[in-house]
Amino acid sequence: MSGNKSALLFDATQRLLRRKAYGNIRRIIAKSHPADLAILLGRFDGEHRRKLFELLENDETRALVLAELDLEQQVAIVAELQVDQIVTIFNEMDQDDKADILGALREELANEILTRMSGEESLEMEGLLKYPDDSAGGIMTPEFIGLLETKTVEAAINYIRENRDVEMAFYVYVVNELGQLVGVISLRQLVVSSPDTVLRDIMEPAVVSVRVDADQEDVARLVSRYSFLAIPVTDDRNVLLGLVTVDDVIDVLKEEATEDILKMAGAGPEMMETTSVRGSVRARFPWLMISFIGELLGVFLMQPFGEALQAHHFLVFFMPIIMAMGGNLGTQSATIIVRGLATGQLIQGHFLRIYWREMRIAVLMGLIYGSFVGAVSFFLSGMELSYAISVGVSMFLAMAIAVSVGAMLPIFFSKVKIDPAVSTGPFITSAVDVLGLLVYFSVSSLLLSIM
Amino acid sequence: MSGNKSALLFDATQRLLRRKAYGNIRRIIAKSHPADLAILLGRFDGEHRRKLFELLENDETRALVLAELDLEQQVAIVAELQVDQIVTIFNEMDQDDKADILGALREELANEILTRMSGEESLEMEGLLKYPDDSAGGIMTPEFIGLLETKTVEAAINYIRENRDVEMAFYVYVVNELGQLVGVISLRQLVVSSPDTVLRDIMEPAVVSVRVDADQEDVARLVSRYSFLAIPVTDDRNVLLGLVTVDDVIDVLKEEATEDILKMAGAGPEMMETTSVRGSVRARFPWLMISFIGELLGVFLMQPFGEALQAHHFLVFFMPIIMAMGGNLGTQSATIIVRGLATGQLIQGHFLRIYWREMRIAVLMGLIYGSFVGAVSFFLSGMELSYAISVGVSMFLAMAIAVSVGAMLPIFFSKVKIDPAVSTGPFITSAVDVLGLLVYFSVSSLLLSIM
Repeated sequence: MSGNKSALLFDATQRLLRRKAYGNIRRIIAKSHPADLAILLGRFDGEHRRKLFELLENDETRALVLAELDLEQQVAIVAELQVDQIVTIFNEMDQDDKADILGALREELANEILTRMSGEESLEMEGLLKYPDDSAGGIMTPEFIGLLETKTVEAAINYIRENRDVEMAFYVYVVNELGQLVGVISLRQLVVSSPDTVLRDIMEPAVVSVRVDADQEDVARLVSRYSFLAIPVTDDRNVLLGLVTVDDVIDVLKEEATEDILKMAGAGPEMMETTSVRGSVRARFPWLMISFIGELLGVFLMQPFGEALQAHHFLVFFMPIIMAMGGNLGTQSATIIVRGLATGQLIQGHFLRIYWREMRIAVLMGLIYGSFVGAVSFFLSGMELSYAISVGVSMFLAMAIAVSVGAMLPIFFSKVKIDPAVSTGPFITSAVDVLGLLVYFSVSSLLLSIM
Repeated sequence: MSGNKSALLFDATQRLLRRKAYGNIRRIIAKSHPADLAILLGRFDGEHRRKLFELLENDETRALVLAELDLEQQVAIVAELQVDQIVTIFNEMDQDDKADILGALREELANEILTRMSGEESLEMEGLLKYPDDSAGGIMTPEFIGLLETKTVEAAINYIRENRDVEMAFYVYVVNELGQLVGVISLRQLVVSSPDTVLRDIMEPAVVSVRVDADQEDVARLVSRYSFLAIPVTDDRNVLLGLVTVDDVIDVLKEEATEDILKMAGAGPEMMETTSVRGSVRARFPWLMISFIGELLGVFLMQPFGEALQAHHFLVFFMPIIMAMGGNLGTQSATIIVRGLATGQLIQGHFLRIYWREMRIAVLMGLIYGSFVGAVSFFLSGMELSYAISVGVSMFLAMAIAVSVGAMLPIFFSKVKIDPAVSTGPFITSAVDVLGLLVYFSVSSLLLSIM
């Protein structure tokens, strides 16, 4: 569904909800895909969201729609339901999805739901709940096709026929009597092999797997690098526990991109609609504090130049443009390096080369914009050559310094194992501001005293 | 392979290449996955890269490795090979991959390669080459399993058995006599159906497809929203032309995230390692120019305050901190909104709500940091209340203005159909700088004249 159609559906539903025309809503949404219904539902909140969820066709649809929502929305919706209905809906959901929701609910409610589940299922749930959300265990599903290596192709196909609700049935994993992963067979290979072949004879023994405690980012990187549709998850004795499918990997990749972007702007790791004003203030406050402290240092460092500034107040007019040009160029360099590190395009051995490249860019840009701003200040000051040279030279130096800082800071952060994404925000701008102004005032004082 | 192992492999290979120990290199790389070899190769350039590519086991490996590289690297490597070898390697590659490379080669060389290909293949290539790189046609593969609706399950399985090189064999697409897409069957459904069933009877007729001219971003959004493993591509008469697989979608998503991040920093759309210094300067220059013009406007607008600045040069010390805090807070707001628009989490109907939320955050932050900076300036000025109030109130107002601009600019850009990602860079910082300083000087002039 295009963004346009989806906006129309939203408008129509909103109108009908206000008019309480529930029959009409049911008809409108009856033919929609659960993924589209999830987007629709995600745009409402409070009473409207509750009502719309209630209007969904049946608990199976509710389960499918719920699975597509963000965790915060899932929790908000589930918290408003009766425990009985939660259990019915959960019966229709994939294990990994309901484990995520259970893990985020109030402990009391989660326990109540667990006690109402069947014994086997509640054990499985508790198994999943012990893995961190951002680990392979946290995003895996414990439902997979795992068959003994001594089984035949025919037995495998029968197994697939009888287990229609297994999530990803394109790979069959082969295990030994201890449950250890020993090979993989694609469904395609199975289809084209004769029924009495033993799995061991057609399986691919070199199967790539991840440990249950692996970071979800590493899992996503493996799946995307090797173009897998799923990757098996094992414990430290290589016992097969579950698998992570490519659609979960796509979610991880999107989540990480959003996190990186917000971190780079110092806006905290969480997206907006789900966070309260207080939560946002708490997330953003530290970044602003870094900037505040950095710039405050600048206030103190500028004190010795007070008299010079009073005598040559013309120089004040060019403070913002020198700071801004340095800040922008430095942020460009930092962003390119941060993104290069995140995508793996940039590796340690290449740092010097990149640094050298960025410095050449800085010199070129500094020459161009230094001349521009020098010319402007020359005319604006009534042809005062000393002012023009001070402004132009300072612009050049500020841009060179900005690129040095912008290129080195992310590399430094990555060396000391801090996510370099944090460096593009307040760190670089305040460092560039303070250094740029100190250079400006020093150069000006020097030039004005000798010219 | 972890980043660590891959760095070790790089170091070892580099040493061996320098020592020309080619036998050792062959042994080291013989057991590596093509995806890992591609990463290794991507870290070299010039003669070393050429040599390493030559050392790969055979043309099949070369084809697999080549397929994993970035387009720029593919072109650089292919351009150094003999036409004969290019054709042999291309014979081992998927259609969509070689079409991308052909499209990026010098026209002369591309034509020479096309004339050496078999008639059928060169026709297919020319067909693919006519679609833009960033359209569904540009990323699709023309190899798929498409079968007539009147065929049986047995015939379908035989077809799969005989066509082992088709890229994505997990879905079978069903077409009518005109080649029009009428349904889809998963390989799993095929496996569990009896051999004499007619495809029409088990196919899912509600198949989601994309038009060949669809934007690759829209294709990626569909595949990720519905968790497809592949999506069929049709022309305007619904004739099946090819399919886009989930691994290509992951590449598109990564590419788009990188593009967005670089755009947000005003660093141009291309990544670094592949771009020359001159190319980078050209990409970044316009963004710096926007900033330059904006800040230059500020220089002129500040002129009337020259005398006041000379009389109260103490105020100059606080210009950078007011500009920086406003700029940082405004960038946070803009980034959150830009990302919300890009991921679809934020829709038009919610703008007012988000704006209101951001303004409350701005007021809180403005009160906190306005008090901080007011206190600092009070003591630093020797208890001058008028200075302290000027600085504190201006900080508060600058932060509120910054959030207004930061929240409104991306929404405005999105309304006039410009990618809102461009708004977070120079536009916001220069607008906030200029407005913030004007407010600062106006407030100070007013307060100092009445106090």
